[in-house]
Amino acid sequence: MRNKFSETRKKETLNTYSGLYTDMYELTMAQGYFLTGRKNETAVFDYFFRKNPFEGAFVVFAGLRDLLEVLEGLSFDTDEIDYLRLQGFKDEFLEYLKDFKFSATIYSVEEGEIVFPYAPVLRVEGSIIETQLIETLVLNYLNFESLIATKAARIRLAAGDRMFVEFGLRRAQGLGGIHASRAAFIGGADATSNVYSGYKFNLKISGTQAHSWIQSFEDELTAFRKFAELYPDNCILLADTYDTLNSGIPNAIAVAKEMEKKGQRLKGIRLDSGDLSYLSKKARHMLNESGLEYVKIVASNQLDEYVIKSLINQGAPIDIFGVGTRLITGMPTAALDGVYKLCMCNNIARLKISENVKKIIFPGIKKVVRLIDKEGKFVGDGILLEEEQETERIFHPHQPEKSTFIAEYKKESIFHKAMDKGKICILKKSPEQISQFVKERLAKLPDEHKRFKNPHIYKVGISEKLMKMRNEMVNNLRTKKQTK
Amino acid sequence: MRNKFSETRKKETLNTYSGLYTDMYELTMAQGYFLTGRKNETAVFDYFFRKNPFEGAFVVFAGLRDLLEVLEGLSFDTDEIDYLRLQGFKDEFLEYLKDFKFSATIYSVEEGEIVFPYAPVLRVEGSIIETQLIETLVLNYLNFESLIATKAARIRLAAGDRMFVEFGLRRAQGLGGIHASRAAFIGGADATSNVYSGYKFNLKISGTQAHSWIQSFEDELTAFRKFAELYPDNCILLADTYDTLNSGIPNAIAVAKEMEKKGQRLKGIRLDSGDLSYLSKKARHMLNESGLEYVKIVASNQLDEYVIKSLINQGAPIDIFGVGTRLITGMPTAALDGVYKLCMCNNIARLKISENVKKIIFPGIKKVVRLIDKEGKFVGDGILLEEEQETERIFHPHQPEKSTFIAEYKKESIFHKAMDKGKICILKKSPEQISQFVKERLAKLPDEHKRFKNPHIYKVGISEKLMKMRNEMVNNLRTKKQTK
Repeated sequence: MRNKFSETRKKETLNTYSGLYTDMYELTMAQGYFLTGRKNETAVFDYFFRKNPFEGAFVVFAGLRDLLEVLEGLSFDTDEIDYLRLQGFKDEFLEYLKDFKFSATIYSVEEGEIVFPYAPVLRVEGSIIETQLIETLVLNYLNFESLIATKAARIRLAAGDRMFVEFGLRRAQGLGGIHASRAAFIGGADATSNVYSGYKFNLKISGTQAHSWIQSFEDELTAFRKFAELYPDNCILLADTYDTLNSGIPNAIAVAKEMEKKGQRLKGIRLDSGDLSYLSKKARHMLNESGLEYVKIVASNQLDEYVIKSLINQGAPIDIFGVGTRLITGMPTAALDGVYKLCMCNNIARLKISENVKKIIFPGIKKVVRLIDKEGKFVGDGILLEEEQETERIFHPHQPEKSTFIAEYKKESIFHKAMDKGKICILKKSPEQISQFVKERLAKLPDEHKRFKNPHIYKVGISEKLMKMRNEMVNNLRTKKQTK
Repeated sequence: MRNKFSETRKKETLNTYSGLYTDMYELTMAQGYFLTGRKNETAVFDYFFRKNPFEGAFVVFAGLRDLLEVLEGLSFDTDEIDYLRLQGFKDEFLEYLKDFKFSATIYSVEEGEIVFPYAPVLRVEGSIIETQLIETLVLNYLNFESLIATKAARIRLAAGDRMFVEFGLRRAQGLGGIHASRAAFIGGADATSNVYSGYKFNLKISGTQAHSWIQSFEDELTAFRKFAELYPDNCILLADTYDTLNSGIPNAIAVAKEMEKKGQRLKGIRLDSGDLSYLSKKARHMLNESGLEYVKIVASNQLDEYVIKSLINQGAPIDIFGVGTRLITGMPTAALDGVYKLCMCNNIARLKISENVKKIIFPGIKKVVRLIDKEGKFVGDGILLEEEQETERIFHPHQPEKSTFIAEYKKESIFHKAMDKGKICILKKSPEQISQFVKERLAKLPDEHKRFKNPHIYKVGISEKLMKMRNEMVNNLRTKKQTK
């Protein structure tokens, strides 16, 4: 029985619209709702996260467009249905899945928005089956792209006006690299080495030569010269195959001089090992001595926001940073802890308690307002119940004795409808446009929230009405238990 | 121009056989080889890694089958060729890519083999263009699956005979989750929650209910009861939605008793928060008091090899561990540092030097022999030149004063031909078979190499002939520089 599915799909490509891209329990529960006659019941789920990655104080929200496009096309094909039948799913339910179309409504903050722990980022309203089935998909796309966009934004903060290029595909977590390159671009990378993602998402791509190019020639000078002849407009020479200062840079200078005679200009040299601060200073000096001030220095090798910041602080004359592993895998955090929690069922607010007070969820349908001061800077986010027009004060989500008076601030609603009954209803923005939006929004976030370590925590509070509603529900559940 | 590629591919699924799944510089170099008339030249590349992940002493090699299948189908379709044209690639080269078929030969250790730093794991022999083009692909597949299989093997070591199930898709790095679930299964997981990977790779899948199922009912008891009615053969009840010890476990016991009356048996309860040692002991006691010794306890929530080991050491009566984030992302390492290095070009051995002696590569065509003692245990790996029949002694790769006499050991050649001129030439093994092979091989690795922290380093050495060849080449390159 099982072998049927192991040998036959060799040449098949991946179906990213497959309804099977989910956890088994979503299907088990979905069948449960179906078989107990609950398929027309409604549910509302919130997506949010509890902890900022990288010991930081913010997250760049990414992955929305990719998620919505997958949801629009989500379906179960015949082979997939057959597979579920073999797993013991019932025919009536499989008939339902055969015609399954996602038709829920989604409210969300915009892709590229700066978001914070505990505030809802996205809300799904629909039938209990469809809203349940997509849990894994929502978490998989949003957690990952947001993680990588956030890492890229931190690297952008470190690099300032200097260029940085993502080249992580070889160390990416398998096919995760595809969306990671998109997310890195959104977060602030200028280009990617990943050609497939460039093609698929319309990202700027770049790349010149590896050590193997140099090694494959009899000597380094010939390797450089040949490359310059082939790519005179985009020639970056890798300088560390044999000996950076005694061979790589002198040979690059020789080729640059030959190019000048033809009216061409060497674009840059790349350093990929050794002490990048020391080598970049030496290289810059040698290049300048030869009148090659225009030749750029590219550096790579285990870079991240901390190393880049340190290099810049040391005055390393690096023009372009190439960032791979630590960006593409979101090291050292590696996963955003986003969750997807039921907050309403059949128009009744729902709760989940936990041993840990921080894991108690906010029931009901909520909206998020961003609080903005007179200088246009973000000062906090308020979580209100949907029907609330105004609130004077927001309360700390877990320490009710802490509250903030917010009347003086401008309020901006950051939740918008993104999908209407299964159809995307927001305009498609290019990664470049989203990246621009990230820059604009990050500029409004005060610097103290952008520190890499021990940043000032951004204020996220709940309205008094929401707090009271939650407390009442918690008390009711506790009383219920005691009286049993 | 660029917008052409941003709007039109919405409903397209991913093409994992796309030749564009590579770094830009591979294509730039490939065109360079082509345009300089070198397309029929040959090259040999080695895949190996330098550092064990997770502070451990071994790696479980995985991803080979997936890589070979992609290589067999690798091609560039018309849209992809058009995209490259827009990036400035030349028509002659694009004509070549249009008919591109991967036709190189690959030697590799078997998937599931235990492998160690510096020893070649896989070797590609073919035309310089095809061997260069696939660098990114090789690294992307092998680095990631090996990382995850290794993490899973460590978790298997910690869990011993108890079951462990992977349920990481929601925190996986996007589509990386697809191959991660396969790799986790190979490394030692008993099942996955990931239905798509179960379908694609024929893995055992499992999953029952989430908090939302419980929350969606008026009360926990009804939610449990309904689930037991639907799934009497596979009923695991999630016990921590409201209050584990005062509500979850008592309700689960009530349902188990109801099931007994129908001749059914509750399979288990699941704990997903709180102190798992404390709660599992209390739960076990309560279940046993009610004569429910057969009901299993499942535990999840931020588990990894360390937490599992600690829980077992504390005597926690947990039968099944659910492991998500830290397995599926290979935390805290997140990436295996595997590299792909040119070691031959046109039948001449090639070298790359570096500021760091550990980054100097081994030139020429090599093979790996595993050294096995009288008890059948692995004692080390020897790297020999292909033509060497025997070697008496192996030398530390970077400290030539250290060597080991190896005449007494049995030698097993672990390198085999896996692909012949572009065609896979090894039998397809199921993930279950590969997982079994991992268990057999790990059993032969002495315990001191399997410690989680500060393990004994496994011996990997090179033959005297290889050492001399490398030293000579390094000296030649150094002399060349000095005489310039």
